[in-house]
Amino acid sequence: MFYHDKKLQYTVRVDRPNPAFARLLQQAIGGIEGEIRVCLQYLFQSWGSRGPQKYKDMLLETGTEEMAHIEMLATAVALNLEGATNDLKDQMVGESPILSGIMGGMDPRHYLSAGLAAMAVDSNGVPFNGSWVVGSGNLAADMYANVMAESTGRVLATRLYEATDDAGMKDMLSFLIARDTMHQNQWLAVLEDLGGVQNALPIPNSFPMTSQPNEFAYTFISTDINRPEAPDARWASGPSIDGKGEFTYQHAQPMGQEPQLAPPVPEGYAQQEQMAAGPDGFIEKVKETLF
Amino acid sequence: MFYHDKKLQYTVRVDRPNPAFARLLQQAIGGIEGEIRVCLQYLFQSWGSRGPQKYKDMLLETGTEEMAHIEMLATAVALNLEGATNDLKDQMVGESPILSGIMGGMDPRHYLSAGLAAMAVDSNGVPFNGSWVVGSGNLAADMYANVMAESTGRVLATRLYEATDDAGMKDMLSFLIARDTMHQNQWLAVLEDLGGVQNALPIPNSFPMTSQPNEFAYTFISTDINRPEAPDARWASGPSIDGKGEFTYQHAQPMGQEPQLAPPVPEGYAQQEQMAAGPDGFIEKVKETLF
Amino acid sequence: MFYHDKKLQYTVRVDRPNPAFARLLQQAIGGIEGEIRVCLQYLFQSWGSRGPQKYKDMLLETGTEEMAHIEMLATAVALNLEGATNDLKDQMVGESPILSGIMGGMDPRHYLSAGLAAMAVDSNGVPFNGSWVVGSGNLAADMYANVMAESTGRVLATRLYEATDDAGMKDMLSFLIARDTMHQNQWLAVLEDLGGVQNALPIPNSFPMTSQPNEFAYTFISTDINRPEAPDARWASGPSIDGKGEFTYQHAQPMGQEPQLAPPVPEGYAQQEQMAAGPDGFIEKVKETLF
Amino acid sequence: MFYHDKKLQYTVRVDRPNPAFARLLQQAIGGIEGEIRVCLQYLFQSWGSRGPQKYKDMLLETGTEEMAHIEMLATAVALNLEGATNDLKDQMVGESPILSGIMGGMDPRHYLSAGLAAMAVDSNGVPFNGSWVVGSGNLAADMYANVMAESTGRVLATRLYEATDDAGMKDMLSFLIARDTMHQNQWLAVLEDLGGVQNALPIPNSFPMTSQPNEFAYTFISTDINRPEAPDARWASGPSIDGKGEFTYQHAQPMGQEPQLAPPVPEGYAQQEQMAAGPDGFIEKVKETLF
Amino acid sequence: MFYHDKKLQYTVRVDRPNPAFARLLQQAIGGIEGEIRVCLQYLFQSWGSRGPQKYKDMLLETGTEEMAHIEMLATAVALNLEGATNDLKDQMVGESPILSGIMGGMDPRHYLSAGLAAMAVDSNGVPFNGSWVVGSGNLAADMYANVMAESTGRVLATRLYEATDDAGMKDMLSFLIARDTMHQNQWLAVLEDLGGVQNALPIPNSFPMTSQPNEFAYTFISTDINRPEAPDARWASGPSIDGKGEFTYQHAQPMGQEPQLAPPVPEGYAQQEQMAAGPDGFIEKVKETLF
Amino acid sequence: MFYHDKKLQYTVRVDRPNPAFARLLQQAIGGIEGEIRVCLQYLFQSWGSRGPQKYKDMLLETGTEEMAHIEMLATAVALNLEGATNDLKDQMVGESPILSGIMGGMDPRHYLSAGLAAMAVDSNGVPFNGSWVVGSGNLAADMYANVMAESTGRVLATRLYEATDDAGMKDMLSFLIARDTMHQNQWLAVLEDLGGVQNALPIPNSFPMTSQPNEFAYTFISTDINRPEAPDARWASGPSIDGKGEFTYQHAQPMGQEPQLAPPVPEGYAQQEQMAAGPDGFIEKVKETLF
Repeated sequence: MFYHDKKLQYTVRVDRPNPAFARLLQQAIGGIEGEIRVCLQYLFQSWGSRGPQKYKDMLLETGTEEMAHIEMLATAVALNLEGATNDLKDQMVGESPILSGIMGGMDPRHYLSAGLAAMAVDSNGVPFNGSWVVGSGNLAADMYANVMAESTGRVLATRLYEATDDAGMKDMLSFLIARDTMHQNQWLAVLEDLGGVQNALPIPNSFPMTSQPNEFAYTFISTDINRPEAPDARWASGPSIDGKGEFTYQHAQPMGQEPQLAPPVPEGYAQQEQMAAGPDGFIEKVKETLF
Repeated sequence: MFYHDKKLQYTVRVDRPNPAFARLLQQAIGGIEGEIRVCLQYLFQSWGSRGPQKYKDMLLETGTEEMAHIEMLATAVALNLEGATNDLKDQMVGESPILSGIMGGMDPRHYLSAGLAAMAVDSNGVPFNGSWVVGSGNLAADMYANVMAESTGRVLATRLYEATDDAGMKDMLSFLIARDTMHQNQWLAVLEDLGGVQNALPIPNSFPMTSQPNEFAYTFISTDINRPEAPDARWASGPSIDGKGEFTYQHAQPMGQEPQLAPPVPEGYAQQEQMAAGPDGFIEKVKETLF
Repeated sequence: MFYHDKKLQYTVRVDRPNPAFARLLQQAIGGIEGEIRVCLQYLFQSWGSRGPQKYKDMLLETGTEEMAHIEMLATAVALNLEGATNDLKDQMVGESPILSGIMGGMDPRHYLSAGLAAMAVDSNGVPFNGSWVVGSGNLAADMYANVMAESTGRVLATRLYEATDDAGMKDMLSFLIARDTMHQNQWLAVLEDLGGVQNALPIPNSFPMTSQPNEFAYTFISTDINRPEAPDARWASGPSIDGKGEFTYQHAQPMGQEPQLAPPVPEGYAQQEQMAAGPDGFIEKVKETLF
Repeated sequence: MFYHDKKLQYTVRVDRPNPAFARLLQQAIGGIEGEIRVCLQYLFQSWGSRGPQKYKDMLLETGTEEMAHIEMLATAVALNLEGATNDLKDQMVGESPILSGIMGGMDPRHYLSAGLAAMAVDSNGVPFNGSWVVGSGNLAADMYANVMAESTGRVLATRLYEATDDAGMKDMLSFLIARDTMHQNQWLAVLEDLGGVQNALPIPNSFPMTSQPNEFAYTFISTDINRPEAPDARWASGPSIDGKGEFTYQHAQPMGQEPQLAPPVPEGYAQQEQMAAGPDGFIEKVKETLF
Repeated sequence: MFYHDKKLQYTVRVDRPNPAFARLLQQAIGGIEGEIRVCLQYLFQSWGSRGPQKYKDMLLETGTEEMAHIEMLATAVALNLEGATNDLKDQMVGESPILSGIMGGMDPRHYLSAGLAAMAVDSNGVPFNGSWVVGSGNLAADMYANVMAESTGRVLATRLYEATDDAGMKDMLSFLIARDTMHQNQWLAVLEDLGGVQNALPIPNSFPMTSQPNEFAYTFISTDINRPEAPDARWASGPSIDGKGEFTYQHAQPMGQEPQLAPPVPEGYAQQEQMAAGPDGFIEKVKETLF
Repeated sequence: MFYHDKKLQYTVRVDRPNPAFARLLQQAIGGIEGEIRVCLQYLFQSWGSRGPQKYKDMLLETGTEEMAHIEMLATAVALNLEGATNDLKDQMVGESPILSGIMGGMDPRHYLSAGLAAMAVDSNGVPFNGSWVVGSGNLAADMYANVMAESTGRVLATRLYEATDDAGMKDMLSFLIARDTMHQNQWLAVLEDLGGVQNALPIPNSFPMTSQPNEFAYTFISTDINRPEAPDARWASGPSIDGKGEFTYQHAQPMGQEPQLAPPVPEGYAQQEQMAAGPDGFIEKVKETLF
């Protein structure tokens, strides 16, 4: 269960409110790279964790920390939306055409739907979606999902950092960027704790290697119609990353059949002309009774 | 641009059609762990790739291969839906209560909407969602996104393998499981090619380390109200995974303020009682004019 | 910011695991009536709260409590999914055909995607959607949104209570039902604190009554083609609930015009035949230049 | 069944077309506070109404009226999109920086997808979502859902009123604001008709009070780590709103256990290291057979 | 504006309630082929109609009729959900394994969320989505969208007809099937009224033919790597359907370049290794300042 | 299975990059009228095709071609996003107020989430949705779905053509416009190949005409309360388009009953007052036991 402190985890200060920047911050709240996603992802992974207790505990700790990050960002959005006494255009960062280009205006729903507060949506107003909360029950797969979340999350945070010259916002974002650094390291530390990258692969490592055809398990397949030979690349020759095979090369080629489906069943009500094509003519009787 | 061969990449054979298994296979087509996602993800990453050409090329090759996997699975769904001449219940695998439990029936839309064919949805009929197609423009973040996709994808494939005793389906799934093994290795090979895990971290590695407060960048923060001391864990002491810091421990504590928002602006039409609470009384004039 | 205790707010005990009941519980986690929604709704309302501090504080307290309810339900789902050593069918409650009817099977993604754990979805596997998180910035509107959430939430919880005869599950659900009782009372207590129902209406009460045409503000309009006279009903005569008007009756009738839109602009590329219909013929010139 | 009159329920007049305002109006059509939602919500509640006939009838009448409101707004959108002969910027209301800030441009899909007409989306182009149509089968819960819809709806309408200085648009919006006043009163009149707020609570009032633990049913629980004592607030002491209890105060504390899940089942294909952690070692045998 | 009659457009009678069939009927209410979609689609097309008045009027008439169809189906769902006094299994149609296979159970939300009534969702509980409401502003494109809706709608209705042996349900469905027949004819009658298929094509017919490269406008392009020659098919030779060209054949071949994107901009925070690949080395300076 | 050529199907050239136009192009990638939809739609129709092989083959060919169109558009988006060295405003086309109005700014996620590359979303950032991929199993219904897709797609392309004065973009769009011309003709050629419009109708033509009440199958029903007589229109008199009936006219009138649902079942936990209304009083006993 959970408690709170009314104080924020880290200072949130907006020196010069900017409603257009409030819109950008929404990506870090309700976007696929955002904090609601990592918060719920780590918590659901913890609540469903099976196996060593230490991972369950740690996921709960970091999931709870992420809740504080949503709070900081929601506060930042509200502060950017208030006191907007100057024209948006004047508030935009001066030099970069990229940055002024994305500052086309605030999210109208910040005013219309929320009365100048944060919402559970991304920077285009698309709502947070629960499908992004990944917890597979396989610890290594989940750790890679978490590294991915913190990597795209940190990339997002650095771009937001770049998109403002408000000293308060830069300070808050630099804190979040630092925490993302820690969390990238943290999830990879779990993988090390589990025996390292080689031991973890192929994920899941509990599926018998003998149940997969290993002749396809380390082959780089090229579909490039103009590439007859293997590229000189790390993934086309040499030992595989998991140490359990040797990379080889193959040009894509069909090993399967041309698929052939049965004619439609009568109760599917395809067009008559589709049914007539059936190899066995049983549909003729159906047609006779129809018209 | 693209070409096709009418033959499949690998044989798809269904010995004993099972509409309930067709429903399960949909997860591997239109689910977040499925093949539409990886196909579009690798293709969009390739089409937006900036930097060394070899990564752009390789992403295009593997994205194109994944299209063939969608095709195989769609064919498998159609074959499982036809010739269903026996009761679904009899077709379930015999022993495991978990497996028979999930075999509650086919997806009704396989009949109602698709006439016994595959759809772009998951095993609950929830449509594929384009938000799952991650391409951040940062190569390392994208590689972790890809490892994550192939890890959850291979976990899914092994569970599908477990959920059937149809020899044809097991053969097809074992091929896909092998390809996922390759692709996990392949994306990690790119990370190695980029200089390895240490060099890649923290992602993005192009953001100046001096712009983040490094005192927060390697600290494990515990929110556990009953944990006063550091756990004995890989992520709470010792060198960080990226080699750029030393893990430390801190119990969660507020470093920020208690947030205080301004009273509502009049044109936001909050309740009067909210406005009256404003520290500066400017709302009193507004109220006078209202009633 | 937030802390946690590893213990649950209330005991979660499953005497007889039932994967089909796990599926039903998902509605209380990721459904529109579920706990993720109320948790985020109260927290976002708190984080965006403008006006008296006491409401902001209280919303934060109850939002934090709801997080513990998600945790309880996620634990209950995981426990119902494990040790499923008996046939699902045998585990269903005996007598009611309604209840056995809905127990058609478990959510396949509980196995395929989550490895026997809870997900951020409803009982049909439809993901949680951030659009359900309502915070309007108007405190009275938000309180009604919260009463609504707790009312549909308690209705859901009583139905889940009815759908199981597992003593542990009944105990947990009765706790949640009691908390919903409190929260219904709590949000209505805020309305009382704000001056009561009459004072709050019409929401927002800060919009000038003189800016709306009051002749339409208390009239029950019937669209029933066969109802020429007012019904004998509380809402068709007598004082209005807000005490600011008198209910009257009117049969629906058009007070507006038949709408007439301009012809299509050329750059909208409607069909030529649509353009020719324009009242002013300016489109003729366009057509001449086209072909 | 339904009939129509080609005339509108109320005049829709646009004196000075403004495509950016057309975008804002979309929130009142396809947003969660919008007219499609209330129209379908009241109609579905009517069509599924069980119990006294008068409520079913009345819901049908008001649901049908709401259809006319969608029509008025769709007409207003189309009129705002045509004749856009001046620069958008010039058309914006002059003084308020908030209002000019949200007027960043029109919805591009108004041109690209709809040829200058309304769509079933909100002001950010996010499509209407059927999950918003709430009908629980419990009349009191549904009435609170309806009050909430009309409250957030009227708040939205007043903000749109504020965001335009077009006399025609203000006139149309003032009519809709008046109708929302009526409908707030109307749904609360049903609650009065059902015996009033006290009798309705706790919703559902048909669930036995003896089946919930009443010691938790009227207790305000604070999760604030710094609040050891009860706040001086309406919801922490005194009689409960439903008159069936007395508000008390409790600081949050765990009453449940630390949850412990079983180790993963073999067919879930977690990592081997998770399985090894099982308390009973049955997984060892599995591992032996795997590699 | 709209009126209603409390009576249904056509009799709805359920002889033998079947909750599993109620679930199937949802596809015809809230599915992409369902009645909410056509109702809103025709109404939005009418409300946005530009050009001859007769089409606007007729779309309004048929959109209003469709509302009555939603009502009939919602009533049918409610009736199928009540009085469920027999086991679901016994109620299934006897002979066809396909049909009994899809009858795995009722939608749990029919009980949990709606109290045995219809919802605005499809047969898998996926909510109605406003993106399905197509109104392009081009009358011919819209008519094809409408034919498509009525075609997939009638296919769905015939499958539902097949999936029940309840005489009341068959009667209701046969009425809807007949109305779909009319509406298919009706929309095609508009195309005839517009001058017929040839005149309408290519849609939009107001775009100058001289602005498209006509050498690509009638060529069937094959991507089949094994098909060097034109198929003997209606679409590969002979006059085009629009009478404005002659079908020809071409094997797919690239006419464009190998795309080459610029290196990442520094403020996009790609990995350093991506930037180093830039052709112009301007990134070197950036890197120097970074570390 | 699939191969690729690294070259594009047709040249993609951007003379003057414009990030705001990149946003508009997204509608043609991830919108409902876009290329991902047609690509997947044709491929899924092919993979599920039952009946004559030639249609399956052709759908596969055109689906594969569409993949190349996604590639072209994704490349165009990336090129428009780079080198944005001038103010967005300066880059807008000069004369038309409509066009400058929609050019309010770039999609912020193009920078924040994608690092200046294309995404699987529409021009408002709403993700691609798999529900748009229609394949009904009925060939004629699917062909109309395809004509509709190519018609709305070509309308979109002509509007994009209008919205830019970049010669490179106009060239690329004119190629896509030409291909849409071909594909409209192609799908209608299939209908001709199937025997023509008359033979195909009513879709599905395999459902017995005797199973639908033909007295409702060719009647134009008007719901207009002021239209007592038939309009003089193609769809109200004369032979039906399918040649199987004669159009007639009828004013809408109820042929069904006023629906009456049973009272709520006790386990649905409606309000007590709803249950009391039951005609049979069985609920009284329930109420006695409740309080």
